[in-house]
Amino acid sequence: MSRLDSFIRRLEAQRACLDRATELVRDLDGIVLELGLGNGRTYDHLRELFQGRDAPWRDIYVCERQVAAHPDCVPPADRLLLGDMFKTLPAAGFLIDRVALAHFDAGTGDDAANRSLAAGLRPLILPLLRGGGVLATQQEMTCPELTALPLPGGVADGRYHLYRRV
Amino acid sequence: MSRLDSFIRRLEAQRACLDRATELVRDLDGIVLELGLGNGRTYDHLRELFQGRDAPWRDIYVCERQVAAHPDCVPPADRLLLGDMFKTLPAAGFLIDRVALAHFDAGTGDDAANRSLAAGLRPLILPLLRGGGVLATQQEMTCPELTALPLPGGVADGRYHLYRRV
Repeated sequence: MSRLDSFIRRLEAQRACLDRATELVRDLDGIVLELGLGNGRTYDHLRELFQGRDAPWRDIYVCERQVAAHPDCVPPADRLLLGDMFKTLPAAGFLIDRVALAHFDAGTGDDAANRSLAAGLRPLILPLLRGGGVLATQQEMTCPELTALPLPGGVADGRYHLYRRV
Repeated sequence: MSRLDSFIRRLEAQRACLDRATELVRDLDGIVLELGLGNGRTYDHLRELFQGRDAPWRDIYVCERQVAAHPDCVPPADRLLLGDMFKTLPAAGFLIDRVALAHFDAGTGDDAANRSLAAGLRPLILPLLRGGGVLATQQEMTCPELTALPLPGGVADGRYHLYRRV
């Protein structure tokens, strides 16, 4: 499989998991948290899922160190947690127990760095997720507080991860 | 359609067009030219198509201003045309009439800049393409010397382009 094949599968897995996660939180109050904006593609997808026509509206908060997204994909200033997530997440007391869906994709090509970042962020994300809330993540975040959920059809084990907050 | 949906479709179109182009040049001698390396994903796909197991071997030359690809996707130094394509392509006399398949994807998010780059490069690419050679490109490159070819199934008109050198 070429890197192009592999990249396409990763994006398809990401989309399928976000779509599935949306169904999973349908009956759960709470906001959406995008951990890292990047170019804004997944944020745009979340906007369609949670703020699109016919979609029941949810607030989407976005963490980003420095905004470099497509101009169409820049969140409103009052929904942006600007800065290092290791500082902004612990300071975001108003998000504690309020997140119904969080999404994380470290998004660099460095697997070891991605894993390390995911492990570091996990304890900062957990308190924000409400009971029953869902975490969709490209990087594994196994821990007792998170129950792994089955992946959508066509998504290979380990390619993406869905967890439910205990 | 979200930007994530749109990006996935563009990559799927790219892959389908590269795969189709490979069939189209099967009986045509000549080398492969990747116009822009970027992160190396399409170069890696071309390597599978033209240098993979069971694939009839073809040389792949790659143009890039400054290599920033994944380390696994860096071409051999003697197959790399390093520098501004507006300088390296006119200087690559050894490629004239030798290219069976060229691939171009400007790859930035700026459509106007992409179109302008494509228009500027087209007259530099044409002399390198041998008669019957194929150009796969994300940006339109209409001109009398290039005949537009049908796209693979599932690729929307305009999403990618395949041309045959007259």
